[in-house]
Amino acid sequence: MKPVRMSLLCAAAIALALPAFAQSPAKAQEMAIKYRQAAFTLMGAHFGALAAMAKGKVPFDAKVATDNANLAVQLSRLPFSHFIPGSDKGHTAALPKIWTEKDKFEAKAKTMQDAMVKVDEAAKAGNLEAFKSAVGETGKACKSCHDDYRKES
Amino acid sequence: MKPVRMSLLCAAAIALALPAFAQSPAKAQEMAIKYRQAAFTLMGAHFGALAAMAKGKVPFDAKVATDNANLAVQLSRLPFSHFIPGSDKGHTAALPKIWTEKDKFEAKAKTMQDAMVKVDEAAKAGNLEAFKSAVGETGKACKSCHDDYRKES
Repeated sequence: MKPVRMSLLCAAAIALALPAFAQSPAKAQEMAIKYRQAAFTLMGAHFGALAAMAKGKVPFDAKVATDNANLAVQLSRLPFSHFIPGSDKGHTAALPKIWTEKDKFEAKAKTMQDAMVKVDEAAKAGNLEAFKSAVGETGKACKSCHDDYRKES
Repeated sequence: MKPVRMSLLCAAAIALALPAFAQSPAKAQEMAIKYRQAAFTLMGAHFGALAAMAKGKVPFDAKVATDNANLAVQLSRLPFSHFIPGSDKGHTAALPKIWTEKDKFEAKAKTMQDAMVKVDEAAKAGNLEAFKSAVGETGKACKSCHDDYRKES
């Protein structure tokens, strides 16, 4: 990953970061965990709708796919600034090495975010083959990060 | 509320509805509860950032406010199609009368959604007074719905 792209990713995250005013560190950590889990839940749900279309479980509909993909792209940008120091403890499946391999972790996040953009572009273009390919790529990026950085449930 | 607005609200919700394929009713209900709670969590977090600016706890920044408000508007449209039949049971604070007063409940949802749009418009315009007013109106709409339809925690 080129440093300039990383800076842009961080800038986007900071713009949407939540204020930490009047919160104890423990409360801020708890809120960060809840926030990122909620973002992953919504992203997973809308990506699930896209994956169902890519797999032919529901018919491909470019409008519905675009609505879901557009939202999934935005949701994909939300969780990663919330892996704040100390939020490896508590009700979380995040592995501690997220915090010791921050660059690698964020590079994997970026791979997923970029793949999700391709899903959105293919949906907008109504290109089913490109859509299937991009959904596959995104799914692999999710799995790759989960394999390395998420506790098995 | 005029019927035509209600239809538009429902249409928007349907376009983003998740496929219910290959799911038992119990699983679909559990997923619906998780989904709507995640949407409320994110919406609450971003609205919280807006409320902090409206209250002067953090400085007003039109760009940050617009980013948060734009996202909050989109998030405000997500939860309500997930109050599906049977999802009044389980890990939820939703009161059963949501399902027996569906029109009233959805009217309150619409009031909140409309107020959130005003927050977004005021943020975009950089109009702090209009922003404060719209944030107040949105907060009241949230509380009004919670008072009637959410179990006290």
